[in-house]
Amino acid sequence: MKLVVAVIQDEDANKVSSELRDKDFGLTKLASTGGFLSSGNTTLLIGVEKEKVDEVLDIVRANCQTRKKHTSATLPSAYTATSGYIPRSIEVLIGGATVFVLDVDKFEKM
Amino acid sequence: MKLVVAVIQDEDANKVSSELRDKDFGLTKLASTGGFLSSGNTTLLIGVEKEKVDEVLDIVRANCQTRKKHTSATLPSAYTATSGYIPRSIEVLIGGATVFVLDVDKFEKM
Amino acid sequence: MKLVVAVIQDEDANKVSSELRDKDFGLTKLASTGGFLSSGNTTLLIGVEKEKVDEVLDIVRANCQTRKKHTSATLPSAYTATSGYIPRSIEVLIGGATVFVLDVDKFEKM
Ligand code: NI
Ligand code: NI
Ligand code: NI
Repeated sequence: MKLVVAVIQDEDANKVSSELRDKDFGLTKLASTGGFLSSGNTTLLIGVEKEKVDEVLDIVRANCQTRKKHTSATLPSAYTATSGYIPRSIEVLIGGATVFVLDVDKFEKM
Repeated sequence: MKLVVAVIQDEDANKVSSELRDKDFGLTKLASTGGFLSSGNTTLLIGVEKEKVDEVLDIVRANCQTRKKHTSATLPSAYTATSGYIPRSIEVLIGGATVFVLDVDKFEKM
Repeated sequence: MKLVVAVIQDEDANKVSSELRDKDFGLTKLASTGGFLSSGNTTLLIGVEKEKVDEVLDIVRANCQTRKKHTSATLPSAYTATSGYIPRSIEVLIGGATVFVLDVDKFEKM
């Protein structure tokens, strides 16, 4: 038995959790603040048989990988002499996960 | 030294915590949401000497074991021709715990 | 790779976290309630290379060690026949940390 501790972004938490549950992986979500990732994050504890750790990591990776997102700029728009102020789109990095796999000495469901 | 990670239901958290403290086991409670158990749950971190792990598990088991509880139905009551609507009691499963025991490489109280 | 689980008092959390981040240690904060320490506390998860565990413990120790603090008494002031009621300062213990270092079987940043 292994315990996977996955720190992921809040916005990825629901997708990962429901995919893990669909595949019958037990998990609990801990509220976490700040940390490994730049914005609000969630720490998942996932109990898993040794031979299924890779399946769990694949699910986390598929749903949380760092990716670019275009958002409208909150900065003042760029000014050009010919067209005046124009809206500007900026690219931010979202997602990402930091994952620790721990050995479990003893596991019990009561 | 071992670290016991016990995911239990919120309604069992106070009883378990106070029994553990009465017996001088150090613990901290993490707020957790959803997860291994069906309703609101709490994750306890309990630091314990190797030879007392079983005593901790006994305390968790005694206070958190899955059990049936009768509650009044929130569903519409059953209708019978002779007596009209009658109140109905339903049985739900409560309690339960998922427990991981982890090896501790190094322990320090500062 | 090691995972340091440090339970510290809320009032020490910001100083420790920012010193750890200044030195490029990754961490996440979990909200925790009650527990090893007498007042509100925070649990930090800090991922760290084996050879830097002592550096992390030094930072926690430097910022969280148990210490005395003088506060004005909330108890009724002492009465003396000659001077009447006089304000009284009381000494409380604050700070402290309970730290577990766990082996990490596998570590991945996604
Ligand atoms: Ni792009
Ligand atoms: Ni019954
Ligand atoms: Ni003094």
